[in-house]
Amino acid sequence: MHNHHAYTVEEQAAIYKVIAERRDMRHFLPTPVDCATLQKILAAAHHAPSVGLMQPWRFIRITDLQIRQAIHKQVDIERAKTAQAIGEYETTARMSEFLCLKVEGILECGELLVATLCDKRENNIFGRRTMPEMDIASVSCAIQNMWLAARAEGLGLGWVSLFDPIELAQLLNMPADAKPIAVLCLGHVASFYKEPMLVETGWKIEKPLTDMLMENSWNHDDTK
Amino acid sequence: MHNHHAYTVEEQAAIYKVIAERRDMRHFLPTPVDCATLQKILAAAHHAPSVGLMQPWRFIRITDLQIRQAIHKQVDIERAKTAQAIGEYETTARMSEFLCLKVEGILECGELLVATLCDKRENNIFGRRTMPEMDIASVSCAIQNMWLAARAEGLGLGWVSLFDPIELAQLLNMPADAKPIAVLCLGHVASFYKEPMLVETGWKIEKPLTDMLMENSWNHDDTK
Repeated sequence: MHNHHAYTVEEQAAIYKVIAERRDMRHFLPTPVDCATLQKILAAAHHAPSVGLMQPWRFIRITDLQIRQAIHKQVDIERAKTAQAIGEYETTARMSEFLCLKVEGILECGELLVATLCDKRENNIFGRRTMPEMDIASVSCAIQNMWLAARAEGLGLGWVSLFDPIELAQLLNMPADAKPIAVLCLGHVASFYKEPMLVETGWKIEKPLTDMLMENSWNHDDTK
Repeated sequence: MHNHHAYTVEEQAAIYKVIAERRDMRHFLPTPVDCATLQKILAAAHHAPSVGLMQPWRFIRITDLQIRQAIHKQVDIERAKTAQAIGEYETTARMSEFLCLKVEGILECGELLVATLCDKRENNIFGRRTMPEMDIASVSCAIQNMWLAARAEGLGLGWVSLFDPIELAQLLNMPADAKPIAVLCLGHVASFYKEPMLVETGWKIEKPLTDMLMENSWNHDDTK
């Protein structure tokens, strides 16, 4: 049956291509990001769905070098704590591997943004009475839109979640009921990773889609 | 400066178009979804980024009509409780407006899927030591990919979060450390909403992007 709502084959190809070629980037060139392009990427974020149309996303653009450096310092502290935790709960070999990974490009990227949840979230009941975390879901959809728009513009985006949300909120003078959820590194790149960087570096092997699918009830084989 | 990583103008146009035209759909036609198309949409989900490459998304395809009906019943119970909460915390007029909204298309849509967080999540420390909710962020990025792929295929997708996650988990025999986060209605539609349905129905007015942007620190005008 022909579906007249379907996009053209060429349009579909572009959309599947960007979904497949998007990467979480940590290596950047210092070339500045064009202001009009940044606006297009933020507009893409703003087209995201949101629970009860609450539009919980807020973006703090970091243009002050001292604040950028302070964010980097916070992330580096959490990186060390994460390494320690991996050493404790996994192995010291795994900890060493982790410490060899490049986990962020905060000081190098052309644009640094912090994505946050808005304040006064408890006013939004629709779709959140039993699932309050749906606000994080909405902001994540917005960031995925940014990722795809950035890739189409030839720019890399990296989502860093290695930070203490309370300390980062303090640094940015956020109200107590708002919350940072992403430090976003955006910028030009020399090249995009062919596979996710954590696959390329051997940190982890990707599981196939078939491992993710079940029918009618949870029947995932736990021994896998 | 020419950026040789940038997609063609036509490809970019397709990507921005699908980002703008994607809608959270609640009205469906009963026409079945082609199996190959469903696989493409699930493959798009599986291309999502994930924190520490944990790939926390699981999808339970609901093909059993009785389970579909049981899910619908759970959602309808939560819909009534949400209406009551809106009546208590907002106004009874607002409660009545809520009850007039169509909030899901569970019984009509061609395909019903439940998206869940995987079990054994505490094993994943990278990017989650201070931000454990990053697993929800990853599944949300996967669902946003599905939304865009579905729209390009001419199919509607609706994310329903009106359910009690514990009861839904029980219905689907999920382990205690997994969690459902979305009931996904996927299917053919007569037409896509021109604007988000909650805007078209007058439930809510969208705020502009400019309200979401700050520089270097939280300076959002609280009086807005």
